[in-house]
Amino acid sequence: MTTPLEFYFDFSSPYAYIAAMRIDDLAARHGRSVDWRPMLLAFAFKAIGTQPLVQYPIKGDYAYRDFTRSARELGIPLSLPEKFPIGTVAAARAVTWLRATAPDRVAPFAKAVFQAYFVDGRDISAPDMVLAVAAEQGLDAEKMRAAIDSEPVKTALKQAVDEAVSQRGVFGAPFIFADGEPFWGADRLDMLDRWLQRGGW
Amino acid sequence: MTTPLEFYFDFSSPYAYIAAMRIDDLAARHGRSVDWRPMLLAFAFKAIGTQPLVQYPIKGDYAYRDFTRSARELGIPLSLPEKFPIGTVAAARAVTWLRATAPDRVAPFAKAVFQAYFVDGRDISAPDMVLAVAAEQGLDAEKMRAAIDSEPVKTALKQAVDEAVSQRGVFGAPFIFADGEPFWGADRLDMLDRWLQRGGW
Repeated sequence: MTTPLEFYFDFSSPYAYIAAMRIDDLAARHGRSVDWRPMLLAFAFKAIGTQPLVQYPIKGDYAYRDFTRSARELGIPLSLPEKFPIGTVAAARAVTWLRATAPDRVAPFAKAVFQAYFVDGRDISAPDMVLAVAAEQGLDAEKMRAAIDSEPVKTALKQAVDEAVSQRGVFGAPFIFADGEPFWGADRLDMLDRWLQRGGW
Repeated sequence: MTTPLEFYFDFSSPYAYIAAMRIDDLAARHGRSVDWRPMLLAFAFKAIGTQPLVQYPIKGDYAYRDFTRSARELGIPLSLPEKFPIGTVAAARAVTWLRATAPDRVAPFAKAVFQAYFVDGRDISAPDMVLAVAAEQGLDAEKMRAAIDSEPVKTALKQAVDEAVSQRGVFGAPFIFADGEPFWGADRLDMLDRWLQRGGW
């Protein structure tokens, strides 16, 4: 019996988007499923004393170039939105609610949100845009609206993010655990692939 | 005609060490040579507002794990020294002097210094240890001692590091340019390899 890959992501991260486009296929090749777990980078950055990559001088310029070429090499469409980075709490709450109520819908919805932002340039920081993507996915947008405004969903996301950072050491995105082994970054997916192939170290 | 790969490194970086063990072979496969260029991470970190990876909470713990497994996957011996990270200005000055006086000796000497630190746990922050490694490599340790204490060598390194950071955007190590295209990190060597194979984008 195998355990799912735990895939932590923030919708504002181009590297998380790249990993999101690959992770289900990668997992399936090794007979694994994927547990899609929303996190909030802003919370992690505050905890460890970093800031969004693109806000560092010099390093930020490099990051923009690397986002684009990393996607291009993998044949993944990526058009960096003008408004970047963005807050993703509404989208993360929507996923939190889906995880509890319709877990099978989480992965397709999450991918659709990523694509809305990184392919179509739609501003998914706006709750209405998240709900529009949900409706396109055949989800009940009105129920989702109520959920992302509800205290239980807000609390559940807050607790999940807090646990991710302070209990599990998630300090960036994408961040993946395979049987407890941590992999940070889209550029660790090949290492993860080999790790699963070998069955550990 | 091809241009050399410009390989920027700091002797205190495990990822630079890993890249140092691979870069000459990688370059040779594509008919390239390597221009080994010492830099000082402390200077770059100050310029962009970051700090040594292992000094961040949470992220630092992950880094220690990733150093080891990255080396192990490639079959590169790595034993993280107790004293880490360290200042590497003496070793960087030694390389600066060799670049000017005996360029053919730079790569073997640099690799020997990396191995002294990351394999044998010798404290290469001490100028005497750098000179001991030089002597083992058949270099003139007394001339090197005079050189690393000399104003021209000090100034040359300072100018080279300043130019690397402020003119070329080198903010970390290893940092490699291939025909102007920048690659940051030991984990970008496979991308660099493919880039050279394709002859660009």
